Amino acid sequence: MAAGCKNNCPECKCGKTATVIGAGLVGSLWTVYLKKAGYIVNVYERRSDMRLQKMSAGKSINLAMSYRGWKGLSDIGVDEDIRKISIPMHGRTLHKPDGTTAYQPYGNEGQAIYSVSRGDINATLMNIAENDAAAKIHFNEECINVDLKAGKATFKNTQTGAITEIISDVVFATDGAFSAARYNAMQKLDRFNYSQNYIADGYREILLPANEDGTHKLPVNTLHIWPRGRFMLIALPNFDGSYTCTLFMPFEDDKYCFNNLTSKEKVTDFFKEVFPDFYELLPSVADAWEEHPLSSLAIIRCFPWTHGKLALMGDAAHATVPFFGQGMNCGFEDCSVMWELMQKHNENWPEIFKEYEILRKPNGDAVQDLSLQNYIVMRDKVNDPDFLLLQKIERRINYLYPDSYFPLYSMVSFTNIEYQTALKKGNEQEGMIKKLIEDHQITDSTDEASIDTIIHQFIGKQ
Amino acid sequence: MAAGCKNNCPECKCGKTATVIGAGLVGSLWTVYLKKAGYIVNVYERRSDMRLQKMSAGKSINLAMSYRGWKGLSDIGVDEDIRKISIPMHGRTLHKPDGTTAYQPYGNEGQAIYSVSRGDINATLMNIAENDAAAKIHFNEECINVDLKAGKATFKNTQTGAITEIISDVVFATDGAFSAARYNAMQKLDRFNYSQNYIADGYREILLPANEDGTHKLPVNTLHIWPRGRFMLIALPNFDGSYTCTLFMPFEDDKYCFNNLTSKEKVTDFFKEVFPDFYELLPSVADAWEEHPLSSLAIIRCFPWTHGKLALMGDAAHATVPFFGQGMNCGFEDCSVMWELMQKHNENWPEIFKEYEILRKPNGDAVQDLSLQNYIVMRDKVNDPDFLLLQKIERRINYLYPDSYFPLYSMVSFTNIEYQTALKKGNEQEGMIKKLIEDHQITDSTDEASIDTIIHQFIGKQ
Repeated sequence: MAAGCKNNCPECKCGKTATVIGAGLVGSLWTVYLKKAGYIVNVYERRSDMRLQKMSAGKSINLAMSYRGWKGLSDIGVDEDIRKISIPMHGRTLHKPDGTTAYQPYGNEGQAIYSVSRGDINATLMNIAENDAAAKIHFNEECINVDLKAGKATFKNTQTGAITEIISDVVFATDGAFSAARYNAMQKLDRFNYSQNYIADGYREILLPANEDGTHKLPVNTLHIWPRGRFMLIALPNFDGSYTCTLFMPFEDDKYCFNNLTSKEKVTDFFKEVFPDFYELLPSVADAWEEHPLSSLAIIRCFPWTHGKLALMGDAAHATVPFFGQGMNCGFEDCSVMWELMQKHNENWPEIFKEYEILRKPNGDAVQDLSLQNYIVMRDKVNDPDFLLLQKIERRINYLYPDSYFPLYSMVSFTNIEYQTALKKGNEQEGMIKKLIEDHQITDSTDEASIDTIIHQFIGKQ
Repeated sequence: MAAGCKNNCPECKCGKTATVIGAGLVGSLWTVYLKKAGYIVNVYERRSDMRLQKMSAGKSINLAMSYRGWKGLSDIGVDEDIRKISIPMHGRTLHKPDGTTAYQPYGNEGQAIYSVSRGDINATLMNIAENDAAAKIHFNEECINVDLKAGKATFKNTQTGAITEIISDVVFATDGAFSAARYNAMQKLDRFNYSQNYIADGYREILLPANEDGTHKLPVNTLHIWPRGRFMLIALPNFDGSYTCTLFMPFEDDKYCFNNLTSKEKVTDFFKEVFPDFYELLPSVADAWEEHPLSSLAIIRCFPWTHGKLALMGDAAHATVPFFGQGMNCGFEDCSVMWELMQKHNENWPEIFKEYEILRKPNGDAVQDLSLQNYIVMRDKVNDPDFLLLQKIERRINYLYPDSYFPLYSMVSFTNIEYQTALKKGNEQEGMIKKLIEDHQITDSTDEASIDTIIHQFIGKQ
């Protein structure tokens, strides 16, 4: 055991050091993994310590945790702490313009995605990361440079201006979509491919408070959507009885766009007209509107993801739009994969990094394509009878052949089938089922027995 | 006339100030335009004054000036100085692996593109820009920030470290593909779209010196190409009798790639094998090889091109790969267009900028698409009998209907038809002529009279 080892390692590896840039969701979780491998980890976070601020659940967007996210947590044994603060959502509840609702299950019985507060998970993971002396999170530290070859990261304290340089065996940039490490170091490399593409739509959060008795104003174990073709409102439940609602809509150039909602009166009229049932729940929506800023949405792609002693993980490598709820899930999966590669290559970092970026880049691209595709599903297709029939058939095939056939949504949310495989297979399956519906003239009124016969014949031929 | 006016303006406008970031080709030319409009212009250039360095023509890549470039120069009356140092190239001379050559004219009689030295044009334009006190070029000044709203640009002297801040009415970033103004100011804007995509190929220049008597070693008024499918060598004539030759080839993952040419012996063997006639002209090619670095090639797209008081022009807005020889030409066309908009909007810069980016962005995208497309033409299609037949028919249509039909190459190089129109029309025309060849079973041996009849019928139907 090396002098000063604080890990009590059986075989001390405490000479090993790592720097993590960014103490968000992925950075905090990855720190826990690195500690388990015996690294002394220094984490630098640009913002102040969120745990010292009073947070309301509704103050921060909440997230939908699905299989890949849980796996990233359970592989390192920290899932139980998070399960306690999560709310299962077994399907979508659609709110139509006439005020009626319809329910669509996400998968088979028992399958769900989970509403969790970003702030709560982040604080929990930070606490776990810091629960002994092997990791320290330094706050208010802005990354201003990384020497990729030397593994030297430089930070400027946003309060004192003090400069800190730290050299370690390996450096991880988990500092999000607008990663300072990527911007200051990677983007200046020759042959570094990079793109940031904003979509035409932005979003604004609206807090729907709990009833006076603390209960939720809408059914809890479901994700609520008000799909309106070119735009949509969604609502995810919080533990305190409130809902975090988010309106996604074009910035401009559309009948319904953010640039047209320039006064409280216009906001109120808009909700009355297009979301009347929501307006009834929250007549003061125009006040809630002003409590959160209008924000933009971008897809950020780059390659390579590693250079010298630095690797990009999570949003820093593959930031996406939130419509499949896979941003955090994909980032946590980066941790699972990097961990497996650490074992496979016996901590030979050049080998790990090489395989990591080759394995994960196509999946980063695929999760971005899936996210864009699912926006159209959520805001529009969920109302399309052809799409609903297709989904019904798919769920039935999956029910009859639960081990061999998975709908796209299930592959993404309830398995860790690679995103690129899910995307490819999902699109192929959609084509096949469309053909099945056409060939057999299946309609919404076709009886289940006939559908089952068609399915059995079809699968038999595969 | 304002006190201290050095322009002797009839109606003094000398209160007007402009900052130009980058004294390259576009920055120097645009400074001449701004001076004509009565602006006091301060130009800041990161590099030292190239005019003080001894330059050999072959030391810097040369460029092919075509119609749009000449228009940019002649609109402000500076084309004559450049014509004196340009060499017309009326077509391509293809060098086949067996040592034989073939000639393909670029257009009709009298039409040509012009080989010019980047260094010579740049020095000439700098001299014209600085020929009175209304413009000053400051060298060794690196742009470290731009306050877009205030029109304040900040520079750091690369030799003394001194910081200079300058506020002006309007600021132009003409600092090239890796524009510091764009990186430090524009890229941090919300909803700024940006991408840098490197192609799989790089390039290396090779100087082919003149004969001892100063004459050229190859026929002069033509662009030489050694097309080899996946890669190619080209040669453009210089005034001193030398040729600037450039090898374009994949970096890796190919039988013939830069990563395989790791020794002088391998370079020599490569030239002997694939460019035997070139090797005979330059048996010391492996020495010339080492005099220039291996460089990469990228397409850089972004939007918006203007914000507040700043506009991006030239490569800073739309850097492309060099295969259509349109980088400089497109940049000079930016100057022509901005100049026209200055007249149209009576120097109302917000109006000018708004129209400039809407007009030019689709053309920036199109010139990039055209450049990528023309690499395949140059390195591969020029050897394809189907493509050659198509080109022959196109040239004949253009000969018979010189005012109404232009082949793609002619639209791009010999007109100022918008790039986006040229791209669209060029691809449509290719489809039409393919159909014409198929419908009438035209071959290389079809006689001219029959082809003319088919063409007249075809055009009559349009």
